Amino acid sequence: MKTYDIPLVPGPVKVPEEYLAAYAVNYGSPDVEEDFFLLLAENQSLLKKILKTDCDVVIHSGEGMLSLWGAVKSALSPEDRVLVVSNGLFGRGFADMARSAGASAQVLEAPEGEFIEAGALKEAIRSFEPHMITAVHCETPSGLLNPIGAIAPIVKESGAMFVVDFVASAAGADVRTDEWGIDLGLLGSQKCLSLLPDLSFTTVSAKAWRAAEKVGYEGYSALNPWRSAISDRLTPYTHNWHANAALSIALKKILSEGLEKSFERHEKAAAYCRGRVRGMGLSLYAKSESLASPTVTAIYVPEGWTWRELDAALRKRGMAVGGSYGDLAGKVFRIGHMGSQADMELVKAGLDVLEEVLGTQR
Amino acid sequence: MKTYDIPLVPGPVKVPEEYLAAYAVNYGSPDVEEDFFLLLAENQSLLKKILKTDCDVVIHSGEGMLSLWGAVKSALSPEDRVLVVSNGLFGRGFADMARSAGASAQVLEAPEGEFIEAGALKEAIRSFEPHMITAVHCETPSGLLNPIGAIAPIVKESGAMFVVDFVASAAGADVRTDEWGIDLGLLGSQKCLSLLPDLSFTTVSAKAWRAAEKVGYEGYSALNPWRSAISDRLTPYTHNWHANAALSIALKKILSEGLEKSFERHEKAAAYCRGRVRGMGLSLYAKSESLASPTVTAIYVPEGWTWRELDAALRKRGMAVGGSYGDLAGKVFRIGHMGSQADMELVKAGLDVLEEVLGTQR
Repeated sequence: MKTYDIPLVPGPVKVPEEYLAAYAVNYGSPDVEEDFFLLLAENQSLLKKILKTDCDVVIHSGEGMLSLWGAVKSALSPEDRVLVVSNGLFGRGFADMARSAGASAQVLEAPEGEFIEAGALKEAIRSFEPHMITAVHCETPSGLLNPIGAIAPIVKESGAMFVVDFVASAAGADVRTDEWGIDLGLLGSQKCLSLLPDLSFTTVSAKAWRAAEKVGYEGYSALNPWRSAISDRLTPYTHNWHANAALSIALKKILSEGLEKSFERHEKAAAYCRGRVRGMGLSLYAKSESLASPTVTAIYVPEGWTWRELDAALRKRGMAVGGSYGDLAGKVFRIGHMGSQADMELVKAGLDVLEEVLGTQR
Repeated sequence: MKTYDIPLVPGPVKVPEEYLAAYAVNYGSPDVEEDFFLLLAENQSLLKKILKTDCDVVIHSGEGMLSLWGAVKSALSPEDRVLVVSNGLFGRGFADMARSAGASAQVLEAPEGEFIEAGALKEAIRSFEPHMITAVHCETPSGLLNPIGAIAPIVKESGAMFVVDFVASAAGADVRTDEWGIDLGLLGSQKCLSLLPDLSFTTVSAKAWRAAEKVGYEGYSALNPWRSAISDRLTPYTHNWHANAALSIALKKILSEGLEKSFERHEKAAAYCRGRVRGMGLSLYAKSESLASPTVTAIYVPEGWTWRELDAALRKRGMAVGGSYGDLAGKVFRIGHMGSQADMELVKAGLDVLEEVLGTQR
């Protein structure tokens, strides 16, 4: 089965036909055509608006993980210490990535379904003296939207570089890159932008550029070559014109809807989803409503069901949701209402199916 | 201008509509759908046929350079010595990449427009004792198809790992991965496969896997996670289903045409191109016909013209060709007759335009 009537996986989400249509064109060579460099530059400035930043934005050809790897490898020196703020799989992942770059990492892990305490963060900063602090805005596998704004002043005071993964939140939830002092902001194309998983985006502050220059990292995911790629009209590899054409359409659509309207649409779909799920007697993974993400809802697999059984029953009715990974694999399932799927009709249809499925077995 | 009536850039080439159509579909999530893993596995086995290998084939989401970086970073240890066989920009590039991985590199450079002598290679191997030897099959910027088969026995005897970039030759020229003892074979999607620049491919021999295991490289371009990704049904990032669907169509089309027929089609277009160009009194970059690539023809910019003037005059008539890079920038221009562009009518139309343009100025 290629597609589902009710696609509610937390990314890649359903791609609107008008975005897919941008792939049906034969463009010139992105290596030499002036039109492509103008498109790339325009996409960068549209992304700056959505991410509320004056930082440079690097657009890489590859999946979102490319942005995570590129930031860590480009900005970390082997002698650096990285404090990893975590309440999920992607949070913890930064520790492994930092260590693979030769740096030392300390994980500050929150209790299940919660976010770290400000006091614990301050204490960890005091004792560990990190050069870099990483956090995840929307922790997709656990459906949590972390209050980055609340820890931003603490991170800023520490002077550490602030790396934030907003892959599954940006455009669906408010991301204030500059106000929060984010030095490296990480994004992928297949979540709230509703595109294919073929582009990744990285906001790079002046401080992050200085670090990258010092490290001098080279590789496919490297940030440095992109600093002057557009002005030099020379990219480190052949970029993806089709993907950038689709991105242009998606970014303009989001800005024409309006960021605030998009956030409302996501929050409305999420609140409705949580209410229906609670009504079915299911438990949310998020300990408090305030931590529940507007882009994805993580729910404990109900008693009497295994994840496999539930997934199969939903699929039989044309509905696709996500399971989870790591510690949460089999324990939690996820409804992705982000981007094109932050759609009340679609979410309602999905929850009707879920209710029906759970009912049949009771 | 998005597209040209006569696209003859040496990649990305014109993408057939039937390949682009694969992007118009909404697939499920490549992270969880069994169908996707089956498609990925099928694409791997189709690539093995085209590359004449029993080695594993890793399919990465990103441009061809990802395959080059991934091979170098995954298989090289800092104490390794790399002998770089070069007669062009991509050949030499391996030296910089090897050094960025901490290894030492020695470049064995051939005279302009020629390939290295077997004796020189043997001597360099004797004195430098390399752990890895790199070569480029089709050196796109200089339009040379290097006789990898001729140096293969020498490399094999040395016991060094053999890394070959066949990005711009495979499927358009005969690539014998196993017969030539290639440990890491590198390919991109936008040359003879006539696809978007969104996938890269790496053949990995048992020896190369042992090296990668020893090095333990981690990063977006890493090979190791892909060794068991399909059997584990767990990929290190969200793959690109659309690109793999298009790849499947392209690989099946190439195999249904037949590899030998495809090679003939490329050689015929190339021979015709060289003949017409010589007839116009232009000089080929390749010193001997036997080194001229069947996929791309590199020609010296004629006297009385600058590359910019020639490019502008051709574009005015709807024809796009390639310039060159590095030392050859401005000196050489290139006609790309690879993949969908290895088409006698298209090549003839292009050469008619070139003849007309050169005529007008005489």
